[in-house]
Order: sequence, then C-alpha cells, then structure tokens
Amino acid sequence: MAHAHGYAVKDAQSPLVPFQFERREPGPHDVCIDILYCGICHSDLHQARDDWSNSLYPMVPGHEIVGRVTAVGAHVKKYKVGDLAGVGCMVGSCRHCSACAADLEQYCEEGATWTYNGTERNSDQLTFGGYSDHIVVEEHFVVKVPENLDLKAVAPLLCAGITTYSPLRYVKAGPGQKIGVIGLGGLGHMGVKFAKAMGAHVVMITTSPDKGKDAKRLGADEILVSRDPTDMHKHANSFDFLLNTIPVGHDVNPYLGLLKLDGKMGMVGVLTPIDPVIGGNLIFGRKSLFGSGIGGMAETQEMLDFCGQHNIVADVEMVSIKDVNQAWHRMEKNDVRYRFVIDMATLG
Amino acid sequence: MAHAHGYAVKDAQSPLVPFQFERREPGPHDVCIDILYCGICHSDLHQARDDWSNSLYPMVPGHEIVGRVTAVGAHVKKYKVGDLAGVGCMVGSCRHCSACAADLEQYCEEGATWTYNGTERNSDQLTFGGYSDHIVVEEHFVVKVPENLDLKAVAPLLCAGITTYSPLRYVKAGPGQKIGVIGLGGLGHMGVKFAKAMGAHVVMITTSPDKGKDAKRLGADEILVSRDPTDMHKHANSFDFLLNTIPVGHDVNPYLGLLKLDGKMGMVGVLTPIDPVIGGNLIFGRKSLFGSGIGGMAETQEMLDFCGQHNIVADVEMVSIKDVNQAWHRMEKNDVRYRFVIDMATLG
Repeated sequence: MAHAHGYAVKDAQSPLVPFQFERREPGPHDVCIDILYCGICHSDLHQARDDWSNSLYPMVPGHEIVGRVTAVGAHVKKYKVGDLAGVGCMVGSCRHCSACAADLEQYCEEGATWTYNGTERNSDQLTFGGYSDHIVVEEHFVVKVPENLDLKAVAPLLCAGITTYSPLRYVKAGPGQKIGVIGLGGLGHMGVKFAKAMGAHVVMITTSPDKGKDAKRLGADEILVSRDPTDMHKHANSFDFLLNTIPVGHDVNPYLGLLKLDGKMGMVGVLTPIDPVIGGNLIFGRKSLFGSGIGGMAETQEMLDFCGQHNIVADVEMVSIKDVNQAWHRMEKNDVRYRFVIDMATLG
Repeated sequence: MAHAHGYAVKDAQSPLVPFQFERREPGPHDVCIDILYCGICHSDLHQARDDWSNSLYPMVPGHEIVGRVTAVGAHVKKYKVGDLAGVGCMVGSCRHCSACAADLEQYCEEGATWTYNGTERNSDQLTFGGYSDHIVVEEHFVVKVPENLDLKAVAPLLCAGITTYSPLRYVKAGPGQKIGVIGLGGLGHMGVKFAKAMGAHVVMITTSPDKGKDAKRLGADEILVSRDPTDMHKHANSFDFLLNTIPVGHDVNPYLGLLKLDGKMGMVGVLTPIDPVIGGNLIFGRKSLFGSGIGGMAETQEMLDFCGQHNIVADVEMVSIKDVNQAWHRMEKNDVRYRFVIDMATLG
C-alpha cells in the first residue's frame, strides 16, 4: 500500500477537508499516476451532498484526472514511466459482458467501477478520486493524452468532453447537419466546440442572451434565446440533433418543437425526472429522445486524439486545492466559465 | 357533385346519426370507391368527442376503408373500375416538401389532408370519412388490396396495421430481436402479428394475465404481466424494442427498465402527456423513446403486400351501421377483440 493524501468530504454536510488514505500498490496490469490536474465536475457536488442517494463516505471526489505515469505493472503494454495519462469516470468493468465487448464499458451489465464513490472490483474498499496526489488504475481504463494540448485544460475532457463527444458521434454529427446545444456550462461549452469541429452548423440555445457573445467565441454559428417565442418559432422543425446538457428536471416539449422530421434530442445532464413529454410531440415527426452517459474507453481515447488533432481543450479557471470549497460554492451559482480545474501542485 | 350518405356526429355530444352530403366528382387524378367495409378506430371516438380540441362538425368518421373502384379520372394509372382499393388516414399532402419527397406524407410540412375532420386541400370544404357509401380520393392516396385476404378484416390494416408496421420497420424488426408489444387492443394485436411475421421473438406485455392465451394465439412467444414484479425483473434489460400502444398518459419508466443497451421504445398510441421520464432511465443504457404516426403511402402499400404474402389480417367483429353507437360504447370499455368493422351494405 502507498500512502496518499487528498481532500475528502466526511458526510453529506461536510466541507472538503484534507484526508490521508492508502492506494494499492500497482498490480501487473496497473498504472500508477501522479495527478497534476483534476477538473471539478458538477456531479462531484451532487455526490458529496448525496443528491442521488447513493453516496459512500469518506468520499474523495474527482474524475477528470490528468497526470504523469510514475510506475507500471509487469504486464502493462501501452504506458511507460514519464508518459502523460488521463483517467475519467470509471476505473473498472467486468470486461466480458456484451456491453464491455462492444467497447461500452460505461454500460457494463455487472456495473462499472466508478473512479470515486464506488468500491474496488474485488473488495469492498472504497474507490477514491482525483482530488488527491496519485491514483492507481488498471491499464485498460487509462487513456493517452496528446502532448500538444494545454495539460491543465485537458482534465475536463475526461468527463465533460466525452459526455458530449459520444452522443455527437452516436448521431453521426457532421457537415450539413444543424445541431443545437442546450445550456452553456461545462458540458455545453464542450458540445459547441465538438459539434463545430465535426463540421455541423451549430446553434447555442440558452435562456441568457448575454451568453451569446461567448458562445460565438466558442464556435457557435448562431444563438437561439429559448425564452424568445419569435426566435423559437423561427427555428421550429429545423434541427437534426439537440444536445441537451441541462442538469435538472425541465420541460423538453418546446425543444422537441425545434426538431425536424426524424430529429433526435440527446439527454446527457439530467438523471432525475423531466416534465411530462407530450406524446404527440414525438409522434408528429417521428422524433426521438435518448440518453447518453460518458463514453467507452476506446471512444474516450478517440475523443482525446480528436482534441489533439483539432487543438480542442476546455475553457478553465484554475483553483488551488485550498480554495476548492469556494469553487464548489461558485459552481453552484453557475459562476464559472466553464470548468474549474484544481492545480494539484497546491496540495503541497 | 355526387350525392352520398353515411353517418355523422353533429357536435361533441351527438350520437352518430344518418347524414346526407355531397362528394366531389372524380377529377383527372381521382379514384371513386364504393365503400364495402370501414373499421372503427379508437381515434374516431376521440375526434367525435373533441378530445383533442380540433374537431370540425358535422363529422363523418372512418379512416380504415376498403371498397371497389367504380370510376377513375382520365390520368389515373394504377386503378381501373372493379379493382379492390383501400384508403387510410390521409387523402392528400403537398407532394413537394422534404417529408413528401421521402415518402413520409403523414409528416408533410404543410400538413397532410386527413380523411375526415380536415378540409379539402384547395378549399375549406370539410373532408368526410368512411362511415359512408363512397369516397373520392386522389390516386396517390389509394392503395391496392391483395385479392387473397378476407376483405372485411383488411379494413383495420389501413390504420391499426400501418401504425404498428411502420415503427417495426423503422427499428428493422427481424430474427434475433426480442420485441415487446405493450397493450393488447386494436393496435397491439396487429403489432404482435407483424413482429412475429418479421421473425422476432415476441413478448406480449399486458396488465391482464387473462389476455395471455389469446396473445399466444395471435403469435406471441411469451406473455409478460407488467403488474408482476417478478416477471418484470426476469425480463429486465432484455428487449431490443418495445412497441407501446397505450392510448392514454401513463408511466413509461418501468418499461424503459425492460430495454437492453441501445434499446428503443416506440410510442404510437398516446398524443397527450406521459408521466415524467426519469433522465437516468434513458442515460444508463443509451435508451431511446420515439414516436411514430401511421406510415407513408409507399409503406402502406408495402404493408398490405406483406399482409398478402403472410396472410395477415385483423381480428374483427362485424357491426351493422345501425349499431355503430353501441359499438362505440363497447369500444370505450375495451370490449372488442380486436377491431369493429362496419359492413357498409347495412347502410341500405
């Protein structure tokens, strides 16, 4: 066992406080990574507060991890000491079910092992995330980080990036398509960048007209203010795909009216109930509503390679580990453009 | 103008009563059809009662029409006097929008012309449906009826048939797929027959265990009683596709739990709001919910040809036009297996 330190919450009311714990020694298939940067995902706050009624304490959050390899097990093939490496939302899966066989480990029939707020695959020991100095992860769940990217801004790609990249690939986003991104936050700002890089005509759909200027800087071709009925009418029945990043229950019916025949809306943000869908809004136009959760390991690597080729990273605001509770408070108020990243050197 | 007679409702409270009206003379592209049989669709009752707040009176319902051609316009190519012919839910569309160009006239961007409770394409004259002695329809919206089928049992194929056939084709139903049909009524019983004929493993999903025996006669391989938690658990995460024929708002979340990874549920019955969908039920497993409305004219013909090849018709109960109000009352109580058809010879 190797001594580790990081920040944890002790219960649903606790702030993040310094926390000492043990990481396993790297086994033959494991990669040991010194964490350089870790993104702050909105789900870190949901999990810390037990909003989804499945929280395990003490909890070391963090699943947007980049760092440098410090040791590898005897059977590790793709990584060597000194390599850059990334770790996202999962660190294990059964590796033999049909989902795993289809490179969709996030939907593992036996349940994926989540990077934190889970238990190790073969024990009841808690998994601890990236708000910490190092992590030990099975090679299959580690991804290579392109050397040409700004490393600190790569961290959010491991969750916010793949969560938006995967559904865009699922609907074969590309030239000739009109794609709307609903909600301009950590997920939405990545959705705009990816949809644009894939060649689509991108419309940022937001309740806040003041976000428009920034959305265009990120790559949006147009802005649609969803509270403006004239604007909504103008874009009615015109979208091939809507990437819906809203993280709380809401009324999707007005957005369904924006979809053209056979149009699809992908939900990536909300785990809780949405307002009642009107059946006729799906039937008239054969419209679809689907959900998508992160992406498999092969697709996560593909996403990072795509980012390397297109020079895509997240827009980040750096934060010291000592200020992480304050960052959470600001994130709660959507006061971040667009992702906080912890500089783990500040752990001292 | 040709004199016609049928049955109509005069307002939302009215019973069906004898009604005299005029049909247009067949134009150069029109087919004139003597109606032999007309199915009674549950939507006839919804429309008569103004349940969807769009009813136009007087209303002659009926959009499951089969009959024999009595006259054709000069430019009609596919039909001649004496042919069997069918007419379904629509009698016109713009013929030039992208939906029409894709043989999806039901989603016409200018709006399809419905067989009844609509207005003629180029006038404000009401369209009158199949509870009548004859109808005049543009050739493009007429389909050929295979000669080998029991004609009276063909009528329901024009709506209940195509409504269930189309989404099964949309999801490429076939061998190796496990398909569930939710709700055993006019739509559901056709869904079972089609899914079976397409080669899928078919599970009838019903709240009523007593419907099981009949579902197996119709072709179901298995019965799943949705009120039985053990049965629901046994089938969890196992369906490729669910055809949901429930015609009123309901909770789809338990059914989403039956879908496997990338599974889809097609909604064909409910135009009104459904209960709140839990976002996580879509996200975990990348599941889809889509709507589907009838089918285009080419697919309606394909469906009838498929029925001819596989000897598929609806299970019907014949009714005299004089007893049509009583039939509506029984349909309201789901007391029909599985579709009433009016023998139009009883119109006298």
